[in-house]
Amino acid sequence: MANVLRNSAKFGFSGVLSQLSIHSRHGRECVSPCFSLQQRNNSTSPKIKVDLDSSTGVAVLRMQSPPVNSLSLDFLTEFCINLEKLEMDRSCRGLIITSTLSKVFSAGLDIMEMYGKSPERCGEFWKAVQEMWLKLYGSNMVTMAAINGSSPAGGCLMSLGCDYRIMADNPRYSIGLNETQLGIVAPFWFKDTLVNTVGNRAAELSLELGLLYSAPDALKIGLVDQLVPEDQVLSTAQDTMSKWLAVPDHARQIDQCVISVCIYYINTSPLPPDHARQIDQCVISVCI
Amino acid sequence: MANVLRNSAKFGFSGVLSQLSIHSRHGRECVSPCFSLQQRNNSTSPKIKVDLDSSTGVAVLRMQSPPVNSLSLDFLTEFCINLEKLEMDRSCRGLIITSTLSKVFSAGLDIMEMYGKSPERCGEFWKAVQEMWLKLYGSNMVTMAAINGSSPAGGCLMSLGCDYRIMADNPRYSIGLNETQLGIVAPFWFKDTLVNTVGNRAAELSLELGLLYSAPDALKIGLVDQLVPEDQVLSTAQDTMSKWLAVPDHARQIDQCVISVCIYYINTSPLPPDHARQIDQCVISVCI
Amino acid sequence: MANVLRNSAKFGFSGVLSQLSIHSRHGRECVSPCFSLQQRNNSTSPKIKVDLDSSTGVAVLRMQSPPVNSLSLDFLTEFCINLEKLEMDRSCRGLIITSTLSKVFSAGLDIMEMYGKSPERCGEFWKAVQEMWLKLYGSNMVTMAAINGSSPAGGCLMSLGCDYRIMADNPRYSIGLNETQLGIVAPFWFKDTLVNTVGNRAAELSLELGLLYSAPDALKIGLVDQLVPEDQVLSTAQDTMSKWLAVPDHARQIDQCVISVCIYYINTSPLPPDHARQIDQCVISVCI
Repeated sequence: MANVLRNSAKFGFSGVLSQLSIHSRHGRECVSPCFSLQQRNNSTSPKIKVDLDSSTGVAVLRMQSPPVNSLSLDFLTEFCINLEKLEMDRSCRGLIITSTLSKVFSAGLDIMEMYGKSPERCGEFWKAVQEMWLKLYGSNMVTMAAINGSSPAGGCLMSLGCDYRIMADNPRYSIGLNETQLGIVAPFWFKDTLVNTVGNRAAELSLELGLLYSAPDALKIGLVDQLVPEDQVLSTAQDTMSKWLAVPDHARQIDQCVISVCIYYINTSPLPPDHARQIDQCVISVCI
Repeated sequence: MANVLRNSAKFGFSGVLSQLSIHSRHGRECVSPCFSLQQRNNSTSPKIKVDLDSSTGVAVLRMQSPPVNSLSLDFLTEFCINLEKLEMDRSCRGLIITSTLSKVFSAGLDIMEMYGKSPERCGEFWKAVQEMWLKLYGSNMVTMAAINGSSPAGGCLMSLGCDYRIMADNPRYSIGLNETQLGIVAPFWFKDTLVNTVGNRAAELSLELGLLYSAPDALKIGLVDQLVPEDQVLSTAQDTMSKWLAVPDHARQIDQCVISVCIYYINTSPLPPDHARQIDQCVISVCI
Repeated sequence: MANVLRNSAKFGFSGVLSQLSIHSRHGRECVSPCFSLQQRNNSTSPKIKVDLDSSTGVAVLRMQSPPVNSLSLDFLTEFCINLEKLEMDRSCRGLIITSTLSKVFSAGLDIMEMYGKSPERCGEFWKAVQEMWLKLYGSNMVTMAAINGSSPAGGCLMSLGCDYRIMADNPRYSIGLNETQLGIVAPFWFKDTLVNTVGNRAAELSLELGLLYSAPDALKIGLVDQLVPEDQVLSTAQDTMSKWLAVPDHARQIDQCVISVCIYYINTSPLPPDHARQIDQCVISVCI
């Protein structure tokens, strides 16, 4: 989502990446200054594979961490580093997230990260979860989830951080913030994102009962935007992306920013004064 | 709904029950210290009958005040006392509210309480209305309205304070916040509850025109969650309750609390500092 | 919409009309003290024609500025003056806005007002846009848009400021806040109004992509309330108006005010203390 949001994220949320970053010549954070522009956004690692098509400006990020793309601290760190690299690359305007695994998009937070760990380690883990969400939600790129399998809990959150959600039309695949069923409480910002997507009452029922929705039911309440046959999830995302990229970037980004400000205020109170000023300025400068 | 909400209610809303209460050994308010655990939650009065099934942990509260279960000051006081007793009883986890009268759940606020009365008496009455809503909305129990008849105005508000609403599938039964038709303005918190349930636009039309919805129309806009044949309203509520009670209590309660905080802030400004801290703590302690 | 809102508009938003106004004998603003009661609300100008039927208390405001009822500074000023005159006239309780042009309600803001103009002139123009919205949204009258043609951007905003929207059932007519497509960002308050009408997610997609909806699609997401054959748009508005006017004015107005307060707070921070007090008083005085 929007630029101003993303920039301001530097103030409040140094997160897992802060130690790695130095300031680039653009005044933005940069993970490593020695990446060459050509290669840096086509990376492969044990957990995540990124392909950027420079002709379209669209990157596909494939999660490939068997058995179920669990969101461990390692996974999240790698995910965020890749996101940040793409964000820095001005040739990249759109991002599609999908999975290489059969039947699963992501099974969500790695429960082992919360079991028998020190409070410090737990805190580090939750910071990384929040970092993932903020980087997705605050991205300047158009972000789409190509959900080609089940996507419970943290997997659902990842989808909710994107601008658009396309899911495989398979009733055996399910999606939802089902943390409550496991005795875990979804934090404030999980809730905010869900309410903004499906409305208050559906979110209420969903969270209190920890509901998982089949793909068709998820479409019905608006948790995903579109269902397509399983083998067309990625291609549909690519087609849809080209329509989104036809919209002037700066207006779309500021719109996203205007819409997301409410959520953002809740999560970064007190808001860095620079951030409020930037939003005001950008709105005013476009309006007048 | 949630525990933290309920406890904090002690700060801001002493209401009709404050004179009756002393502190029990659990540090909670208790209406009377001499109730025995076995009998105290199966009570019968002229207006309200409560049956607690200790094997399931589910209480059924039957309103039986002819002709139309009007919410008078007396009725509300009795209603709140019963609610508080159930809330104190750790064996009670679920509450179903229904009516013994034919064709009516509750006709809402007793209009005679607002006609030709002193401001003090009016204030006392409205405090009791608010107390009813806060006790329901802030309850730790799973609360369900088994709406086996018409339920205008205050009767609708009572239903909206519950976690789930099942209504008799009879188009002659109606429900809605129709105060405007009577020249009465629904207070802020009536509006908040309605918006949270049916969304802003439906609430807007509903309140500005004082609309009453037939049971099928109420289902369509989400004012009730489910319609069933009239003779199955209570049994369906009991079946549904058992599904809700299968969800871990503490996670569901905190989820409810997280969701309801927005409404609550509006109604208790300034929020007792202890309350904010308790919510923060519970969210943090579960997350980390 | 509501009275208290309208009155308070005097504090924060002096706008284009402030130089013209003096205080009338009712303590309200009055554009000109020499208008006679009989004639002042049946006016014709190059751009706008107003007919008030004193038997029903309903005025019809016809926009007649070819080719497409563009909202120029001149048009908006005239529009606001007419609105203010009707608002002052106690015999006028309802307002229907429609167009005399074929196929178009209003094409929205006059883009020439934002191109190559000084910042001062731009500021003046945007103040007039905001004034239009505030006068409509804060009106005491029941306001209805009889949308007998396409209504993009500012034309859609004008409709959203009304209490009810009836549109011609013609799939070639479109409506929506499509500013983003033009590289223009819809201000905060455009967004707020849209979210309140169609919900957050539909507003998000709508604004980020700058979507225009055909009449049937607009009905589907709730952007308009009703579709009728093109030749029945005005008559249906008149029928619907008579139902709205059957509701007690003061309760409906305060309901509107209670609902709109959230939007209003956002747009007038800090809120004039008198305004907050007035709302509190009116709610309290009706409740107790």
